[in-house]
Amino acid sequence: ESRIFDLYCTLLLEPEDQAPTQRLTPIPPTTRIRIVNFVLKNTTAAGDTLGDLVKKGVFEAKFPLHKGGGDLKTTWARWRNMFQKQPIDDIRCYFGEKVALYFAWLGWYTYMLVPAALFGLITFLSGFSLFNASQISKEICEAHDIFMCPRGDHSRRYQRLSDTCTFAKLTHLFDNEGTVVFAIFMALWATVFLEIWKRQRAKVVLHWDLYGWDEDQEEMALQLINDPHYKLQQHEHSYLRSTIILILSLFMICFMIGMAHILVVYRVLAAALFSSSALPFLEEQVTTAVVVTGALVHYVTISIMTMANKRVALKLCDFEKPRTLSEQESKFTIKFFTLQFFAHFSSLIYIAFILGRINGHPGKSVRLAGLWKLEECHLSGCMMDLFLQMAIIMGLKQTLSNCIEYLKPWLAHKCRSVPGRESSDPELRDWKHNYHLNPVHPFSLFDEFMEMMMQYGFTTIFVAAFPLAPLLALFSNLVQIRLDAIKMVRLQRRLVPRKAKDIGTWLQVLKTIGVLAVIANGMVIAFTSEFIPRVVYKYRYGPCREGAHPEVDCLTGYVNHSLSVFYTKDFNDSVRIKGSEHITECRYRDYRNAQDYNFSEQFWVLLAIRLAFLILFEHVALCIKLVAAWFVPDVPQKVKNTVLKEKYQRLRDKYQRFQKMCSSPKSTTV
Amino acid sequence: ESRIFDLYCTLLLEPEDQAPTQRLTPIPPTTRIRIVNFVLKNTTAAGDTLGDLVKKGVFEAKFPLHKGGGDLKTTWARWRNMFQKQPIDDIRCYFGEKVALYFAWLGWYTYMLVPAALFGLITFLSGFSLFNASQISKEICEAHDIFMCPRGDHSRRYQRLSDTCTFAKLTHLFDNEGTVVFAIFMALWATVFLEIWKRQRAKVVLHWDLYGWDEDQEEMALQLINDPHYKLQQHEHSYLRSTIILILSLFMICFMIGMAHILVVYRVLAAALFSSSALPFLEEQVTTAVVVTGALVHYVTISIMTMANKRVALKLCDFEKPRTLSEQESKFTIKFFTLQFFAHFSSLIYIAFILGRINGHPGKSVRLAGLWKLEECHLSGCMMDLFLQMAIIMGLKQTLSNCIEYLKPWLAHKCRSVPGRESSDPELRDWKHNYHLNPVHPFSLFDEFMEMMMQYGFTTIFVAAFPLAPLLALFSNLVQIRLDAIKMVRLQRRLVPRKAKDIGTWLQVLKTIGVLAVIANGMVIAFTSEFIPRVVYKYRYGPCREGAHPEVDCLTGYVNHSLSVFYTKDFNDSVRIKGSEHITECRYRDYRNAQDYNFSEQFWVLLAIRLAFLILFEHVALCIKLVAAWFVPDVPQKVKNTVLKEKYQRLRDKYQRFQKMCSSPKSTTV
Repeated sequence: ESRIFDLYCTLLLEPEDQAPTQRLTPIPPTTRIRIVNFVLKNTTAAGDTLGDLVKKGVFEAKFPLHKGGGDLKTTWARWRNMFQKQPIDDIRCYFGEKVALYFAWLGWYTYMLVPAALFGLITFLSGFSLFNASQISKEICEAHDIFMCPRGDHSRRYQRLSDTCTFAKLTHLFDNEGTVVFAIFMALWATVFLEIWKRQRAKVVLHWDLYGWDEDQEEMALQLINDPHYKLQQHEHSYLRSTIILILSLFMICFMIGMAHILVVYRVLAAALFSSSALPFLEEQVTTAVVVTGALVHYVTISIMTMANKRVALKLCDFEKPRTLSEQESKFTIKFFTLQFFAHFSSLIYIAFILGRINGHPGKSVRLAGLWKLEECHLSGCMMDLFLQMAIIMGLKQTLSNCIEYLKPWLAHKCRSVPGRESSDPELRDWKHNYHLNPVHPFSLFDEFMEMMMQYGFTTIFVAAFPLAPLLALFSNLVQIRLDAIKMVRLQRRLVPRKAKDIGTWLQVLKTIGVLAVIANGMVIAFTSEFIPRVVYKYRYGPCREGAHPEVDCLTGYVNHSLSVFYTKDFNDSVRIKGSEHITECRYRDYRNAQDYNFSEQFWVLLAIRLAFLILFEHVALCIKLVAAWFVPDVPQKVKNTVLKEKYQRLRDKYQRFQKMCSSPKSTTV
Repeated sequence: ESRIFDLYCTLLLEPEDQAPTQRLTPIPPTTRIRIVNFVLKNTTAAGDTLGDLVKKGVFEAKFPLHKGGGDLKTTWARWRNMFQKQPIDDIRCYFGEKVALYFAWLGWYTYMLVPAALFGLITFLSGFSLFNASQISKEICEAHDIFMCPRGDHSRRYQRLSDTCTFAKLTHLFDNEGTVVFAIFMALWATVFLEIWKRQRAKVVLHWDLYGWDEDQEEMALQLINDPHYKLQQHEHSYLRSTIILILSLFMICFMIGMAHILVVYRVLAAALFSSSALPFLEEQVTTAVVVTGALVHYVTISIMTMANKRVALKLCDFEKPRTLSEQESKFTIKFFTLQFFAHFSSLIYIAFILGRINGHPGKSVRLAGLWKLEECHLSGCMMDLFLQMAIIMGLKQTLSNCIEYLKPWLAHKCRSVPGRESSDPELRDWKHNYHLNPVHPFSLFDEFMEMMMQYGFTTIFVAAFPLAPLLALFSNLVQIRLDAIKMVRLQRRLVPRKAKDIGTWLQVLKTIGVLAVIANGMVIAFTSEFIPRVVYKYRYGPCREGAHPEVDCLTGYVNHSLSVFYTKDFNDSVRIKGSEHITECRYRDYRNAQDYNFSEQFWVLLAIRLAFLILFEHVALCIKLVAAWFVPDVPQKVKNTVLKEKYQRLRDKYQRFQKMCSSPKSTTV
C-alpha cells in the first residue's frame, strides 16, 4: 500500500532530488485521501466502477473520515471566532488546498468590504444630513397646487405633488452627489481588490510550495499510479462544437431574458388586480404592494432558474467533452455563471433602464396586449424602484439563503443521527458518527463560490442605486464564513481534498463583474438617477446660469422645470375622471412639449449629456483600472525573488556537479 | 574553450537527461556567438570592461562575422523573392530567434493585410460607382443659389455651394455607407490577426523547441558561466519610483500634446500668410496649400520628436533600474511607444475631432490670441481634412522612411569600403570585408519593430477616414521585408543573435492599438463622417420619414437641411465684404438657429444619436472581440498535445525507473 505513495512522491518530486527513497518525507493525510479516492473511483472490478457498485447497492457510500479536526473545531468553526483570523494553513492540512483557497479568498473579500461598507454608509448618511435642507424636497413638499397625472389604470385620480414629500426626501438619501463619488470609488475598489488578491494568492501559494505545481502532471501521475497501461487523453477542440454551444448559449440567454419579462407582466397584472380587488387597499399602497410582491416573485424565479441553469450548463459542458475534471469545472463555471448572471440581473436591468421610459405620455400610453397599461416609475422617480428591488432581493438572498443553507444540513443531520444502539468499539462508533453526517456532493464548494460571485455582483454592479449593499454583504459574509466552517467540520462528511494553486476561472468571473460594474454604475448615474438633470439645470436653465447668486439656491425651480404639462382635455376618456373637473392641466415626469407631446429640446440636450457622461465615466474608470493594475504588481517582489533564488540554487548545484565531474571524468554514471 | 559550451549545455539541459556528456549535440553557431559575446561584454580586465576599452580606443570594435549566410542571400535577401515564403528556420539559424520571430511576425502581418487591403479598395471603389449617382453630390452641384459664408479671414467672399461640386464627389469616395462596414471589419480584423498570430507563434516556437524555455534561467546560466562567484540580482520594485515615472510620463504626454498645437498654430498662421502674401495664389488653393504644408510640418515634427522621445524613454527606463536586459527592453518599449503614440496621433486627433467644432459661428468666431481666426474644416466637410492628412503622412512615412532606411546604410557602406590594398589572405580579406560593413547598434531591431507598430497604428486607428491605408501598408511591407533582409545580410555586420520565445511586449502594444482602433473608428464614424446626419435625416426629417416613396430619393433636401442660415447684416464689419451687397443670407455647416445662432434642437438630437452610436459601436465591437478570442484558442491543439505528450513521456520514464529501482532495491546511486 505504502508503495503507491512512494511512487507518487517519486513521480512528482523535483527531478533534482535524485534519491527520493533516502529522504522520504511523510505524506500529508490530504494527499493520501486524494490518491486513495482517485484509485477507488477509477478502479474497475469486472466492468463496474465503484460508482456503479454504489448505484447497485453493493456499497452504500465511500467517504473519508473526520479525524484530527478537533483543532479546527475550536479555532475556526465556532461563532465566537467570528472576528478572528482564519487558520488557513490548518484548513489546508485538513480539507486540502481548494477549500483553503476558498476561505482565504472569502476572508480577504470580507476584509476588503470594510472600507466599501463604511464609504457606502457615509454616503447614505450624508443624505440624512440634507434630509430637510434639499431645495428639491422643499419645493416638492410645498407644491400643493401641482397635480400629477394619473399614473396607472388603477388609480385614476390626480395626486398633489406635495403628497410625495416623504418619498422625495427618502430618494435623496441615495440619489445625491455622493453617489457618483461612491460609484467611482466602487469601480476602483473592485480593481484594487482583484490586484491585491492576486498578490495575496501568490504569497499563500508560495508558502504552500505549490508555485510551480502543474495540474496536468498531477493528473497524469495519478492515472499512471492507478493504471500503468493508461493511455494519454489528448486535448480536443472542434469549431463545430464551439459554434453549437455558442448558439445554444445565446438561445438560453434569450430565454433567461424572456423569463425576466414574467416579472414585468406580473407587475402589470398585479397592479390591475390589486386596485380592482375588493380588499380595502389604500390606493397609494398599491404601488408598494406591487413592488414588494414583484421582488418576491423575482426571488422565487431566481431560485427556480438556478436549478434549471445548473442542468443546462452541465448538459452543455458534457457536450463539449472536457479532458480533465478541472477543465470540466472551468468550462462549467463560465456557462453557469453566464446563465446565472442573466437570471439574476435581467430584471434589474429592466427596472433600472427600461421601466417607465417606454410608456408614452398620459394621453397615449403604451399598453401590454392593448389592454394593460405598462407600469410607471415610482412617484418619486425611477431610482426608488431600483433601490427597493435591490434592497429586497439582496436582503432576502443574504438572510433567507443563509438560513436555508444552515438549517437544511442541520435538520438532516438531526434526522439521520437518531439515537440507535451505541457501539462499544470506539472506532466503530466514530465511523458510525461519520456515516450519520450529511453526504457531500462534489459541487458543494462550487455552489458556495457561485453564491459568493452573485453577491459580489450585487455589491458592485448596481451599487450606485443601493449604497448599503457592501454593508449588507459584509454582515452576511461574517456569518457565511463561520456557517460554511461549521457545516464542513460538524455537519457534513469530510470533503475529498483537492489540490489547487489558484481559484481558477473564478478570477475571470471577478474580472468580468468588475467591467460590468463600471458600465452598469455609469448607466445608473446617467440614466436612472437625477444627477445629470440636476447638474444641467444648475448650469443651463437655472437661476445660476449667468453666474452664482449667493441668495438663491441654484436648484430653485428645478421641480417645476422637470415636469411636463399635459392638458386634461386631451384625455381620450376625460369623462371617466371623477371629482376633478376643475383641473385643466396635470404634470408628469418627462421632457415633452405641451403642444404635440413630442420630446422637447431639453430632452435631447439631456440625452446627449447623459450619453457623454456615460462615455466619459467608462473611459476614465477603465483608464484608472489600467493604471492601478500597472501600479500594483500581480506578484509581490518577495515571492518573485524566492522563486528566482530557488531556480538559481538549482543551477548552482548543477554547476558544482559539472565541475566535480570534469575534475574526475571517470566517475561512475548510472 | 569548448568546456564553456559543455557547461552551458549541462546547465540548461532538461535535468532528466542525466548524462549530457555522452550525447553532446553540437552547439549551433548562434548560441556560441551569444555566449562569447556575453562573456566578452561582462569580463572585466583590470577594472575595464570591453566597452570601456572600446571607448578608450584599445579595441575598435567587436562583432560576429558573416559566415555561412550565402544561403540566405539567395533564398531571402533578394528583391526577386518578394512574393516567396521566408525561410524562417534559416534566419533563426543565422540571426537567432529574436530576428526570426520579427520576420515571422512581419510576414504574417503582410499576409493578413491582403484581405484588409482588398476590402479597403472595394470600399473606396464602390464610392466611384456612386460618383455621380449620389443625391447629395447632385444637390450640391446644382446649388447655384446657395452662398456659403466666408470661411476664413483670408477669403472674405461668398462662395457658391456648387463650386465645391468636385470635392463633394471626392468626399463621397470614402465617406459612404461602406466605410462603416469597413471600420467594423477592421476592428474584427485586428482581433483575428492577433489571435491567429498567437497560434502561429506557438507553432513556430514549439518547432524550435523553445516552448518551455525560461529566460531567467538562461540569463543566470550565462552569468554563472562568466563568473562562478556571481551574486544573484534580485527583483526590485519601489512605489515611489513608479509614482515619479507616472508623473514624468504624464508630463511628457502633456508636452507631446502641446507640440501638436504647433501644427494648429502653423496652419492658422500659414493661412493668414498665404492669403496676404503677394504671390499669385488662387484663393481656393490657399486651403490646399495650408493642408499640404501642414502635413509636411507634421511629418518633420514627428521625425524630430521620435529622437527626443527615445532619449526621454531611455532616461526614464534607466531611472527604473531594470534587472535584466529583457526587462529593460520591455519597460523601454512601453514608455517609448506611449510617447510615440502621442507624438504621431495627437495632431490627427485634433484634426479628426476638434478642428472646426470650436470655431463659433460666422458672426462671432473664436480667434487665436484674439487675432487669427481658428481654421475651419474643408469646404466639403471635416472628413476631407482627415483624409488628406492621413494620406500625406502615411505616404511620406512609407516611402520616404523606407528610402532613407535603405539609402543611409547603402551609402555609408559604399563610403566605408573604399578600395584599399586588397589582402592576399582570404580569411583576412573576409574579416576586412566584415569590418567595412555598417556597425549595428543594439536597438536596430527595436527600431524596426517600433516603426511597424506605428504603421499598424495608422492602418487600424483611423482606417475609417482612409480606407486605402491597408493597401499602402501592404505594398510598403512587401518592400520592407526584403529591405530589412538585404540590410541585415549584405549591408550591416552580423547581429549578435538573441534567444526569444515571443515578441514580448509588442504583443501588448498590438492589443492596445486594437482597442484604440475600436474607439477611434467609432468616433470617426460618429463625429467626423456625415454618416449619422444622413441616416437621421432619412428617417426623421427627410421625405421618407412617413414611409418610403419609391419616386423620391430619401436624401432629397439633405444639403439644404444640413446648412444653417446666417444673415449678413449680423456681421460686425459687414462693410468689408465687397462685391456681394445683394446677398442677405449665407449658409454654413452647422446646426444652429437662425434667430440667436445658438445650437438648434437638431444639433442636440444629432449629438445624442452620435454618442449613442459610439457607445453601441464600442460595446458591440468589444463583444465580438471577446467572442472571437474565445472561439479561436490561443494555442493550437496540436501544440498543446505535443507538450502534453512530452510531459507524459517524462513521467513514464520516471515510473519505469522507479519500478526498476524497487525490483532491485540495492542498486547503486550516485
